[in-house]
Amino acid sequence: MKVALFGAGRIGKVHAASIGADPRSQLVAVADVVPEAAESLAKAHGIAAMAPAEIFADASIDAVLIASSTNTHADLIEQGVAANKAIFCEKPIDLSLDRALRVREIAAGSTKPVMLGFNRRFDPNFAGIKMAFDAGEIGKGEMLAVTSYDPAPPPVAYVKVSGGLYRDMMIHDFDMCAFLFGMPESVMAHGSCLVDPAIGAAGDVDTAVVVLIYADGRLATIRNSRRAAFGYDQRVELLGSEGMLEARNEIENTVVKSTAAGVSSAKPMFFFLERYMRAYQIEWAAFVDAVTGGKPVPATVEDGVNALALAEAANRSLKEGRPVAVAEVMAGG
Amino acid sequence: MKVALFGAGRIGKVHAASIGADPRSQLVAVADVVPEAAESLAKAHGIAAMAPAEIFADASIDAVLIASSTNTHADLIEQGVAANKAIFCEKPIDLSLDRALRVREIAAGSTKPVMLGFNRRFDPNFAGIKMAFDAGEIGKGEMLAVTSYDPAPPPVAYVKVSGGLYRDMMIHDFDMCAFLFGMPESVMAHGSCLVDPAIGAAGDVDTAVVVLIYADGRLATIRNSRRAAFGYDQRVELLGSEGMLEARNEIENTVVKSTAAGVSSAKPMFFFLERYMRAYQIEWAAFVDAVTGGKPVPATVEDGVNALALAEAANRSLKEGRPVAVAEVMAGG
Amino acid sequence: MKVALFGAGRIGKVHAASIGADPRSQLVAVADVVPEAAESLAKAHGIAAMAPAEIFADASIDAVLIASSTNTHADLIEQGVAANKAIFCEKPIDLSLDRALRVREIAAGSTKPVMLGFNRRFDPNFAGIKMAFDAGEIGKGEMLAVTSYDPAPPPVAYVKVSGGLYRDMMIHDFDMCAFLFGMPESVMAHGSCLVDPAIGAAGDVDTAVVVLIYADGRLATIRNSRRAAFGYDQRVELLGSEGMLEARNEIENTVVKSTAAGVSSAKPMFFFLERYMRAYQIEWAAFVDAVTGGKPVPATVEDGVNALALAEAANRSLKEGRPVAVAEVMAGG
Amino acid sequence: MKVALFGAGRIGKVHAASIGADPRSQLVAVADVVPEAAESLAKAHGIAAMAPAEIFADASIDAVLIASSTNTHADLIEQGVAANKAIFCEKPIDLSLDRALRVREIAAGSTKPVMLGFNRRFDPNFAGIKMAFDAGEIGKGEMLAVTSYDPAPPPVAYVKVSGGLYRDMMIHDFDMCAFLFGMPESVMAHGSCLVDPAIGAAGDVDTAVVVLIYADGRLATIRNSRRAAFGYDQRVELLGSEGMLEARNEIENTVVKSTAAGVSSAKPMFFFLERYMRAYQIEWAAFVDAVTGGKPVPATVEDGVNALALAEAANRSLKEGRPVAVAEVMAGG
Repeated sequence: MKVALFGAGRIGKVHAASIGADPRSQLVAVADVVPEAAESLAKAHGIAAMAPAEIFADASIDAVLIASSTNTHADLIEQGVAANKAIFCEKPIDLSLDRALRVREIAAGSTKPVMLGFNRRFDPNFAGIKMAFDAGEIGKGEMLAVTSYDPAPPPVAYVKVSGGLYRDMMIHDFDMCAFLFGMPESVMAHGSCLVDPAIGAAGDVDTAVVVLIYADGRLATIRNSRRAAFGYDQRVELLGSEGMLEARNEIENTVVKSTAAGVSSAKPMFFFLERYMRAYQIEWAAFVDAVTGGKPVPATVEDGVNALALAEAANRSLKEGRPVAVAEVMAGG
Repeated sequence: MKVALFGAGRIGKVHAASIGADPRSQLVAVADVVPEAAESLAKAHGIAAMAPAEIFADASIDAVLIASSTNTHADLIEQGVAANKAIFCEKPIDLSLDRALRVREIAAGSTKPVMLGFNRRFDPNFAGIKMAFDAGEIGKGEMLAVTSYDPAPPPVAYVKVSGGLYRDMMIHDFDMCAFLFGMPESVMAHGSCLVDPAIGAAGDVDTAVVVLIYADGRLATIRNSRRAAFGYDQRVELLGSEGMLEARNEIENTVVKSTAAGVSSAKPMFFFLERYMRAYQIEWAAFVDAVTGGKPVPATVEDGVNALALAEAANRSLKEGRPVAVAEVMAGG
Repeated sequence: MKVALFGAGRIGKVHAASIGADPRSQLVAVADVVPEAAESLAKAHGIAAMAPAEIFADASIDAVLIASSTNTHADLIEQGVAANKAIFCEKPIDLSLDRALRVREIAAGSTKPVMLGFNRRFDPNFAGIKMAFDAGEIGKGEMLAVTSYDPAPPPVAYVKVSGGLYRDMMIHDFDMCAFLFGMPESVMAHGSCLVDPAIGAAGDVDTAVVVLIYADGRLATIRNSRRAAFGYDQRVELLGSEGMLEARNEIENTVVKSTAAGVSSAKPMFFFLERYMRAYQIEWAAFVDAVTGGKPVPATVEDGVNALALAEAANRSLKEGRPVAVAEVMAGG
Repeated sequence: MKVALFGAGRIGKVHAASIGADPRSQLVAVADVVPEAAESLAKAHGIAAMAPAEIFADASIDAVLIASSTNTHADLIEQGVAANKAIFCEKPIDLSLDRALRVREIAAGSTKPVMLGFNRRFDPNFAGIKMAFDAGEIGKGEMLAVTSYDPAPPPVAYVKVSGGLYRDMMIHDFDMCAFLFGMPESVMAHGSCLVDPAIGAAGDVDTAVVVLIYADGRLATIRNSRRAAFGYDQRVELLGSEGMLEARNEIENTVVKSTAAGVSSAKPMFFFLERYMRAYQIEWAAFVDAVTGGKPVPATVEDGVNALALAEAANRSLKEGRPVAVAEVMAGG
């Protein structure tokens, strides 16, 4: 399976490595708006930098991996569908729910797999929760709690184009809730600026609690902070009628030091590239399985639209100080 | 310090033991609406069962410990103040915020300590969090999360007179938030009946998430369930600008078994009598310190009123589906 | 059941409290070579200080609890047997194995329970290992490891009369091995003086590893240090054909702090009075069960002799640099 | 840096991947006594299968990685030195200490780095202990304990040619002790056959405890079992004058399940390829650092000889039931 990569940045490099590590896939081309970046990555892999149009026109290329900036995702998916390529696209589809809904329609017409890069679904810890839960090991689901803190806030310049915390950061957690509990009925969002006043000045929040209310009474809580001094905190906790499942942090090492001052141990793995390295590899294997083995796509455009709808509802809830029904934002209200 | 006990039930017996264990206090009388209960506990301690009026009239009695049913608390506090006794009263003051506000006024006139039994403030784990937080070990507080699950739901007959989950169960967690973060500006409550349909039929919830919104942007989240299959789950987590503090569960023993089936360990201590045994003893010592040593009362009638106001706000929020300002319920709106 | 206590020191006070806490037993007399100590403890419990002879002569006294200094144990047990009292005696029986063997003979003639104070058998963690192991949860036993470190070395004056590390400190661990694995065939001891040169100057070791070799090939390892900077370290690990059981330390509280500097948590409970408080209470209840309920004595004079024999074998092994058979020391070689 | 690989088996494949993953090294040739194995691995890497003589004669090859069977190690190291190649060789040098001593002499004459594959030195957990210990974080070392259990015993056919548990399995743990504590003065070994009678029939043990006695009184304990039902157990614990360092197991995932049956979590990572995957990569990078950057070799032929001497001393100690001085075996006694 021959693959072209859009985007030669940090996450593009991670995906390039995953493509190379899976014996069933082969990286054959890379494109980037910065020609030097494309050239550099292409050279490292002994392949060619190509223009997007060339890639789509090349019939020998089976799949495209879209890891370029968010504002290019929707267009590239549409072009990929038109060119009959299998598509793997980083989240989100777009910052606009309307735009994402149009992409969903177009992707629905594709005969090839179109997959969204919700990498956390493939983390062995969260996947382990999903498996145990679906197997009924803790009975019926009742409450879900997702904790997701970044080690440090991004630059304000990034925040300004990010679409805001709910669409940029919590989008992963919305997807995690949808992954485990499905889609809620309504969303209640709270948010503050406690970490960096510049983020507040840019109109965004850096500290947030969102509650998802399900039609059958289940409740999910998401907590986000742009800064945890101890590093990248990524946990999930699920209470069911017959027990609880937790996915705790992975830590840097297992050394424990006991002295008169107390007992100390390592911090969580820093940062998403370290923590989710295994997830990126498993995720890519799942895409290859879908393309070459006809297996179902484990994270669809529909999933991307759903996560975006929850972010949109959260934004509206925060602004208006009331619970917002998902149907309301899906209807384009 | 001579002490009379109101209430010879389960929690009354715990307090009787604490009174006896502290060399500075002595149990001298017990009263209960069920004469046999009073007689039995009195006999076990080699003391007299007395009528409430006798107790209040007995000038040799320094303090009363009120552990009778909730609907007697307010009256007994008022009578205790009138009789010039030091008072230790189990939470809550009353199910009615208005009634509690009147008790607060009366208690304000007392020259003796009046203390509320918020036992969790004295749990070494939660107290440890408080101490480290107040010492600035994790910087400025940002997000607080309290998890509090009971092992099994109470009988519906109890639920019906309990005042509802927010006033009966979450009252402890409201106080924990106030203990660590002070009073919030508003309250948003969610709740469902997922555990026992009879609880729903009685007009109450058994599964609940409440968010407390602070004027300065801090956020606190409380999760309650009337049933955790694995037992009594009591945790607190506090994110600050420079780190995080967690109080995890105490477990029944430290045995870990590793077999081909996996690694297994003990469940959390079952139930509040076991988990908070140390807290009850420390709590009583703090009351004796206040009475005999002039130390400040570490859980006041004011604290009891505050917790009740948060419960009242939660009830209103759940009913009306909107955030409710604490000022609104304090104003009797 | 009326009980007289010999020894009003630190451990005597702990036992006095246990006697009082069990509703089936009552402390009625206390004796101590220091009259003021006896008087003080007697007064605190509202009872009489008595001379040993008076105690043995008093037919209303059912049982004696011997918590006086080690060199008095053997005589007091013998006098207690002669006076037909039930006897609870702190370990060890004596520093001399020969003397202990004579006590064993005499105790064998008693119609009343004679119990040794091997408190760790009653620790819920170690007892939990025993129960799971005896229930076959990890198959057949193969290797046992006992780790037992004190927080700080005792004064050298104490070391000089202690009988040495193996008889004074490791005696508990020898009993733990016998409790879980029975008696070994031979003993190989290693020991050094690394903590306090004065201990070495007094002819003792402060750091020790002993291996117990069982006739069927099982192996047990005991590690002792007179000093662990982080506190009292008490762990057991048992490998079986189908898994492993561990009893980990109990910790002071469950607070975990995560900051940029790392993750820190509480130290083990300090020291034996805190760590084994529950064990002392359960131990006493077991003695009362034996005396009043006819239950088997869970730690016998035989057990005391066995532990002493292992200590004696360890002493000889250390001195001679070779494995020493238990039969060799039992034979008085 | 161009590298040829000897040995296309399981561990050879791991090293081939490490060579490829480090951008500074390139796999250019592979040799194996089974031509098909060499061909298959060569093909997977797009390189040539070569005969050993060709490899040593090829001046463009900078380094050889010896991962063939143990009985070929010594010869290949000597040929590598003669051909002026940098050498990375899997442990052990040889099953014979005499042979290893001759290799040591020859390797001493090499101008290129010769490194032994003691992979555990590079495990981030054990390396973390080493770093903290060497930095003085727990003061002076006193006792060391290494626990090392395999998930299941190897086939008896393997046991018969393995050189026995001490040389085949415990060799890693001997090196770990030498890595952290240096070389001991004497060795006392115990061992039994509890896991598989066929291992005993083959003259080997499958369960072992060895104590290393250091000249300055420090003590190290190694426990080995050929079978731990719960998987691969790899732990180190180091007590110092100011505290303790532990390296605990790495676990398969961080999922914790709490139900009425208890709390369960994942088993240790299974088996050395999983547990030490990171170690193999870091180890290779260290070799490349030595070859290309002139950094010191972190695991030398000397280290290999030392570990073998400890194994030899353990064999003699087990046979003769006495502590054996390392000098005795080094002297070829």
